[in-house]
Amino acid sequence: MTIAHPPKPGNALWVYAHPRRESLNDRLLQAGAKALSQRYEVTVSDLYAQGFDPVLSRRDLGDLSDRPGNIAELAGEAYASGQLPADVREEQAKLAAAELLVLQFPLWWYGPPAILKGWFDRVLTSGFAYGDLDPELGVPRRYGDGGLVGRKALIVVTAGEDERSIGPRGISGDLDSLLFPITHGVLWYVGIGALDLHVVHDADSLGPEEVEHQVERLVTRIGGVDDEHARQFRRLRDGDYANTRALREDLASGRTDLGIHLADRD
Amino acid sequence: MTIAHPPKPGNALWVYAHPRRESLNDRLLQAGAKALSQRYEVTVSDLYAQGFDPVLSRRDLGDLSDRPGNIAELAGEAYASGQLPADVREEQAKLAAAELLVLQFPLWWYGPPAILKGWFDRVLTSGFAYGDLDPELGVPRRYGDGGLVGRKALIVVTAGEDERSIGPRGISGDLDSLLFPITHGVLWYVGIGALDLHVVHDADSLGPEEVEHQVERLVTRIGGVDDEHARQFRRLRDGDYANTRALREDLASGRTDLGIHLADRD
Repeated sequence: MTIAHPPKPGNALWVYAHPRRESLNDRLLQAGAKALSQRYEVTVSDLYAQGFDPVLSRRDLGDLSDRPGNIAELAGEAYASGQLPADVREEQAKLAAAELLVLQFPLWWYGPPAILKGWFDRVLTSGFAYGDLDPELGVPRRYGDGGLVGRKALIVVTAGEDERSIGPRGISGDLDSLLFPITHGVLWYVGIGALDLHVVHDADSLGPEEVEHQVERLVTRIGGVDDEHARQFRRLRDGDYANTRALREDLASGRTDLGIHLADRD
Repeated sequence: MTIAHPPKPGNALWVYAHPRRESLNDRLLQAGAKALSQRYEVTVSDLYAQGFDPVLSRRDLGDLSDRPGNIAELAGEAYASGQLPADVREEQAKLAAAELLVLQFPLWWYGPPAILKGWFDRVLTSGFAYGDLDPELGVPRRYGDGGLVGRKALIVVTAGEDERSIGPRGISGDLDSLLFPITHGVLWYVGIGALDLHVVHDADSLGPEEVEHQVERLVTRIGGVDDEHARQFRRLRDGDYANTRALREDLASGRTDLGIHLADRD
């Protein structure tokens, strides 16, 4: 089972999940990808333009589609036997080549649009993006040691809400917690370290000058992205969750917030 | 703009988002819906069987599809002018009629499958599920006062992980936090109170007797669901987030976990 995919140096994948042209997101994509292309070979997966189908279904299982069992495990078998659909294989090839991943999307119902959620569901198959016990590591290929280990990811998210509503103690929950299922549950699980979120607040009500400011801000951010360090969550292999899969009592004692899983907070 | 939809007493909607027949989820659906039908008229939205398309796109905007602007706002206008697609209108009619909502899904990448995420994206349009400032209330129709106020929801979720991995301080984050974007961001936002999660752990490795036990457990849960109280999050109108949209400093002081938004914890 292949669980390590060395990236191609200087390669980046920009996954874009917004339906409209001439939108703020479109502006950010054009300017951001251009800025990034000064140092990277940038591939864009424009999920809406591609007509990407986000629904994981029997179509994803090749000749295993009638076999009983867990669909994620069966998709892993379909991956191992080269039976995944062409659109999934293409996305996997792009992702495997990239050393930097950008995920750009508008915040819909406090999460990614369905088309991006389904990109996770279909593309990050068992065997490709994570695996069972690795004999050398002594732990499963998950949580910091997944099949895509060594990569960094930048999340660019536009939100209709203001900075306070999705900030610490904000009424909608803080965005770091709301997107923990992506930064930790998806990215860290498969070995990819997320950089600090790049958030554009009040995205529905920006005037022309504010849009320009946000475009500039993203271009500047991308200019310095190589010098940024990804947030490190705790790794399974370090023993912080030894025996129980719950965080050891002596670490981040008394706390129950999701921030306890960050590795650099003790 | 219509923002209140009185439910039809004794009506329930069961939204089901799993692709496979003869699965654990299928067993839970059949037994659960049968148990519920002893007291409710139960409608099932079997999203996979319906071929529900979860991708919010220009198709959702009627004759507004070429107009610039925010897609959520335009979908709200399409709702107001009766231009939403037939599949969305059908789901809205089912939801408006229901006083009890069941959302059943497998946990994929620490969230709902794309087909369910897109049901939120497309069905819960502005004007139908939430609204702007209500003159009588003096606050927007959101967070406890949304367009679907007065309903309860039961989330039935199957997870491959064990109880510790997604329990308090579990390596994957606790499930209450992981699903906060649904219980609070989606349901509470539109006025629906979520009951305690109904979780089936280790879902991929249950033996036949354990499956029967889980079926029994769900049937028992459903038998008592009318006596359960929904969790209450803080309402916008109560002033807990006065002026700043961040929780007042004197409430749940010093805490930053998502549990601070529960109304009954002080």
